[in-house]
Amino acid sequence: MSYRLGELAERIGAELRGDPDITIDRVAVLDAAGPSAVAFLANRRYRPYLESTKAGAVILGPEFVEGCPVSALVLDNPYLGYARAATLLSPIIERELGIAPSAVVDSGATVAPDASIGAHCVIEVGSRVGAGTSIGAGSFLGRGSSVGPHGHIAAAVVICRGVHIGARAILHPGVVVGADGFGIANDNGTWVKIPQFGGVRVGDDVEIGANTTIDRGALEDTVIEDGVKLDNLIQIGHNVRIGAHTAIAACTAIGGSARIGRRCTIAGAVSIAGHLEIADDVHLTATSAVPNTIGEPGVYSSGMPIQENRAWRRNVARLRQLDEMARRLRAIERKLDGQT
Amino acid sequence: MSYRLGELAERIGAELRGDPDITIDRVAVLDAAGPSAVAFLANRRYRPYLESTKAGAVILGPEFVEGCPVSALVLDNPYLGYARAATLLSPIIERELGIAPSAVVDSGATVAPDASIGAHCVIEVGSRVGAGTSIGAGSFLGRGSSVGPHGHIAAAVVICRGVHIGARAILHPGVVVGADGFGIANDNGTWVKIPQFGGVRVGDDVEIGANTTIDRGALEDTVIEDGVKLDNLIQIGHNVRIGAHTAIAACTAIGGSARIGRRCTIAGAVSIAGHLEIADDVHLTATSAVPNTIGEPGVYSSGMPIQENRAWRRNVARLRQLDEMARRLRAIERKLDGQT
Amino acid sequence: MSYRLGELAERIGAELRGDPDITIDRVAVLDAAGPSAVAFLANRRYRPYLESTKAGAVILGPEFVEGCPVSALVLDNPYLGYARAATLLSPIIERELGIAPSAVVDSGATVAPDASIGAHCVIEVGSRVGAGTSIGAGSFLGRGSSVGPHGHIAAAVVICRGVHIGARAILHPGVVVGADGFGIANDNGTWVKIPQFGGVRVGDDVEIGANTTIDRGALEDTVIEDGVKLDNLIQIGHNVRIGAHTAIAACTAIGGSARIGRRCTIAGAVSIAGHLEIADDVHLTATSAVPNTIGEPGVYSSGMPIQENRAWRRNVARLRQLDEMARRLRAIERKLDGQT
Repeated sequence: MSYRLGELAERIGAELRGDPDITIDRVAVLDAAGPSAVAFLANRRYRPYLESTKAGAVILGPEFVEGCPVSALVLDNPYLGYARAATLLSPIIERELGIAPSAVVDSGATVAPDASIGAHCVIEVGSRVGAGTSIGAGSFLGRGSSVGPHGHIAAAVVICRGVHIGARAILHPGVVVGADGFGIANDNGTWVKIPQFGGVRVGDDVEIGANTTIDRGALEDTVIEDGVKLDNLIQIGHNVRIGAHTAIAACTAIGGSARIGRRCTIAGAVSIAGHLEIADDVHLTATSAVPNTIGEPGVYSSGMPIQENRAWRRNVARLRQLDEMARRLRAIERKLDGQT
Repeated sequence: MSYRLGELAERIGAELRGDPDITIDRVAVLDAAGPSAVAFLANRRYRPYLESTKAGAVILGPEFVEGCPVSALVLDNPYLGYARAATLLSPIIERELGIAPSAVVDSGATVAPDASIGAHCVIEVGSRVGAGTSIGAGSFLGRGSSVGPHGHIAAAVVICRGVHIGARAILHPGVVVGADGFGIANDNGTWVKIPQFGGVRVGDDVEIGANTTIDRGALEDTVIEDGVKLDNLIQIGHNVRIGAHTAIAACTAIGGSARIGRRCTIAGAVSIAGHLEIADDVHLTATSAVPNTIGEPGVYSSGMPIQENRAWRRNVARLRQLDEMARRLRAIERKLDGQT
Repeated sequence: MSYRLGELAERIGAELRGDPDITIDRVAVLDAAGPSAVAFLANRRYRPYLESTKAGAVILGPEFVEGCPVSALVLDNPYLGYARAATLLSPIIERELGIAPSAVVDSGATVAPDASIGAHCVIEVGSRVGAGTSIGAGSFLGRGSSVGPHGHIAAAVVICRGVHIGARAILHPGVVVGADGFGIANDNGTWVKIPQFGGVRVGDDVEIGANTTIDRGALEDTVIEDGVKLDNLIQIGHNVRIGAHTAIAACTAIGGSARIGRRCTIAGAVSIAGHLEIADDVHLTATSAVPNTIGEPGVYSSGMPIQENRAWRRNVARLRQLDEMARRLRAIERKLDGQT
């Protein structure tokens, strides 16, 4: 795709400072962009690349306009402007419509005529694939499941029986939605499996990263609300509910029956226990461990940053003495209070 | 399936208080159950839903019988009673017997006549699939491997060559059993791969969660004993041995050659170093890091729960001073002792 | 394969003490080795097994020669010697040359005549498979991707479009290379996806463990340099660069745009933030959390080892008081200084 710069500015909601008639056909980073590319500056650390850029135009915030040697597309959230421009300028990836000859599609499944079912897919009885949706090679859609319209399911995705996924979903390779939750009851030292009867409901505009797993509910459904964005290798336990427009980074684990609010951001390698609630607009920094309910919006953190190994060894040994140290400190204070 | 309540009580080992002749055909949660459903109360926090339940009966412990407005199935471990009832009331999932036309089954493989091999499976030479076992679509069974009777292998499971899995196994999608362990030796700054000759032996009644990986041994086998239950996205390194009836929650990592005892429970996001031993009946809470052998049964923990971000910043900065603080505290104590 | 012991010694660079004419056809552990096996002693804790070994020969360091009851292959790095011997003695695994009938290979793909394409593979247009490379059952090679010569791609691997992998690669089952990075921009509370235009470039002699994910770059490529070794369930974010001969253990997460140096070793369950740099020759111990750039080589650590649960509860509660404790300690010191 290509755009006149003036049209691109209008479409991304930016104010144009420069020549509206140059042609833009791609996005690029500041130091690699040529005259038909639009670059962007959204992070102050890349400011030094601005003055020497060869880009046709740069998307940036008002504070950087002065130093821009080429046409500028100015808006308050340049990263958002870049996202919009990149979407407009995306190459159109051709895909074959219809059902690949090697796919196994049950006669009791419903596939929209303009959907695309890749090689070696398996689409079971009673399942539905929406209009314009593509299912990548080797993916599996279990009985009675559905994927809404305009979705993009990559290769090697497993959607188990009774899972319902909304419109415009993006599921990356290796995603598993609807495997059994980890439900076991102890019977004198051995474990008895608890059958998992619930399903998974995934809203509209949800993206799920590679090899992420979302378990089906035990009795009720696991629910991922609209606009949720999940990175790779995330674990979502059974009966979890994730509120709309919450974003979660890679390698985070969420225990069963946790309820996560809306518009939360959860960074990477976070661990959230089951059977708790997290309020709307909570932000968790990387490696946070959440054992209990968070009732108030805010930024929360835990985890220990690295130290040089020898210092860490000395300091971490003291962690076992912390309660004792606190008691000794109190004793000294009492003694000194008694003195005075 | 459906049961008379009196028969259901007997089968799950509960004492019936109420009408033995009502018909039960499902399990449900307290606040969504109708008259043909049995609900359960195993967690005190759901006690408020008991008095208004519309369930036909409720499985519960003796302490809740008084407040139960409907028939009660009373036993000391209601969660176990629920597990049994849910198993009895599970819908029977139809599966096609035999080998799907698109599966590729080597003529030198042995598949039980009543086994089920899904579409696009690959079953290599010398492998064996036991009686009544189903292999889901697109799964792979490598040369010389075996899966015992009455197993349920989901879609997209990879069982590498020389892996042996016992009876009644449940493997969820994306599981990989028998990939090479991480064995490398350093040769002046470059790494030399150590071939992994061992296999994996998995006992009876083992369940393995989605996208979990269990590596083959280097020379001897990696061993998962009977009744072990593994959640999703777990890593089991080469030559690990996990004792019978141990349960491990999601996102836990176990380093090579670790030996985990029997009847342990290991919560989510735990990290266990290699070349150590963990005794029987050890319980590790979520996010625990285990660097050394645990010789005694008990409950062990580590990890830092979240704080409000500003408080965490202040406190975590002090972690680097902990050893120094301990020394200063001791110095003060000496000084004060000298005074008196 | 089998070797005369004298030849084996020469090939692995060891000094032989013993009979050069015995035949060795396998490697084994000290306490299970028979007379045609070579065992090794690379870890002091296995020293007790040396005196009773029935091995034909033992690979060991000079310090253990005296106690060796059989022929000895002596070298300074016995683990490396073992790696070499195991490689020489590996059984040759037969594989079928050519393209399996059930594979779907686009006519616009280029597959070397002596490559092996397994059952149900999908090889898209414009992709290339190098000489002697095998692609396991059900794997996917997206359009315009390439795998260099003498590679071993296991079953169920997904290589997305525009990913380039060098020579002698080993990719284990469930690996996903080239899924979209986690790029989103916030638009008044909802997320806008940022298209991911970059690719992934993987150097020569790289091994990637089961279910590990490596995201494609946003605009530039994600880069894995020569000789990098990755264990299972690792997450590599978009635009990361990993320096040559760095080894990373399982369950480690690396945030987008991080640059990791050469010859680093990163242990398991480490968490590395995005947009930072780690120098060459940095070593991170297990569970380390890296929030910022590491400018100097060395060994770095963080994380809290387990304690008995009750002790941990008491100690961890004090973590929230650490800054306050430090201030009180300082106040006492001031007071005592004032006294004297």
